[in-house]
Amino acid sequence: MEQKGILMVLSGFSGAGKGTLVKGLIQKYDNYALSISMTTRAPREGERHGVEYFFTDKQHFEDTIKQDGLIEYASYCGNYYGTPRAYVEEQMAVGRNVILEIELQGALKIKEKFPESLLIFVTPPSAEELKRRLEKRGTESPEVIAQRLARAVEESEGIEAYDYIVVNDDLEVCIEEIHRLVDAARRAPVRRKEFISEIREELQGFAKGAK
Amino acid sequence: MEQKGILMVLSGFSGAGKGTLVKGLIQKYDNYALSISMTTRAPREGERHGVEYFFTDKQHFEDTIKQDGLIEYASYCGNYYGTPRAYVEEQMAVGRNVILEIELQGALKIKEKFPESLLIFVTPPSAEELKRRLEKRGTESPEVIAQRLARAVEESEGIEAYDYIVVNDDLEVCIEEIHRLVDAARRAPVRRKEFISEIREELQGFAKGAK
Repeated sequence: MEQKGILMVLSGFSGAGKGTLVKGLIQKYDNYALSISMTTRAPREGERHGVEYFFTDKQHFEDTIKQDGLIEYASYCGNYYGTPRAYVEEQMAVGRNVILEIELQGALKIKEKFPESLLIFVTPPSAEELKRRLEKRGTESPEVIAQRLARAVEESEGIEAYDYIVVNDDLEVCIEEIHRLVDAARRAPVRRKEFISEIREELQGFAKGAK
Repeated sequence: MEQKGILMVLSGFSGAGKGTLVKGLIQKYDNYALSISMTTRAPREGERHGVEYFFTDKQHFEDTIKQDGLIEYASYCGNYYGTPRAYVEEQMAVGRNVILEIELQGALKIKEKFPESLLIFVTPPSAEELKRRLEKRGTESPEVIAQRLARAVEESEGIEAYDYIVVNDDLEVCIEEIHRLVDAARRAPVRRKEFISEIREELQGFAKGAK
């Protein structure tokens, strides 16, 4: 493959359909891979090791940090969460775009460390629709819905940090849009450094030769 | 149309095929328009008023500057060159993407003044191919070719300032690529300010109401 894969961050409002989008992208195209986070928190019912998370203990997590084995990590409520480096690098090396489904704080860390990463924010078509989706689940108390809305307000404050904002109205259309954004992103100079320095050097050589 | 048109700058190496690309885009899609520059230099043979340039005199050009009638202007070799504001704004208002075919210095000015403008740099697939294209014209002396190569070296120094770099190998493919880049650019937060502030305000309203 001509180019290394892209490190992608997918964030967005709870209820925006990120999980379904990621599944759709991976099913439809063979050049995407989902990064699975490592965590020290205990598995919840139904969560499987290596699917939702890699579950591990504090000692192993801290050893992994020391060995520079995580590209980013954070701690919430006394538990560590992090992105293992090896999988990300392996997949990118074979040309796959690696998706991190993480939130604003993690997204900002990734962008700082990897300026060539691509940050995408997913949103429903409107706030009205987001509210409808949160209420529709039906299982949540008004308090939980209020919390989620407050959380959505916070999340909305960070949108400008993302490279692109995509509206998830129709799933298939949205998958296609994200795929095109990744394709477009490949054409940003920050991801064409080799090409640029090659053409620059060659031109300098020709210009000298022509004098 | 749902969104205002985008102000696009198309720059690139002499010999990259910018002119043909612009023609192709305009023929293929009805939502592009080419901005025609105003200049005080005399028309060259074959140049038509309103096609290659709007030709005018110094007095009128300076009056236009004073009336804020140009979105950017510069002077080269004692002549003024500028981009008339009215056409650009009219076309963007009806949803057309307006293309400015200008060089690095003008591109930087546009980006500074219009952060939501889109800067695209067009290049042949390699320096070798660029040299071949410059030589192939056959009409140029070795001195002119040497000058153009030196100029290309200078132009290559500015590539990082552009949003995207596109390789013009196959014309049709390249037209399609640019069209997709414009579509991708519409999804950058800098061009979705209204949508972002709307969803933010609505969410704040809901969150207050839910408390």
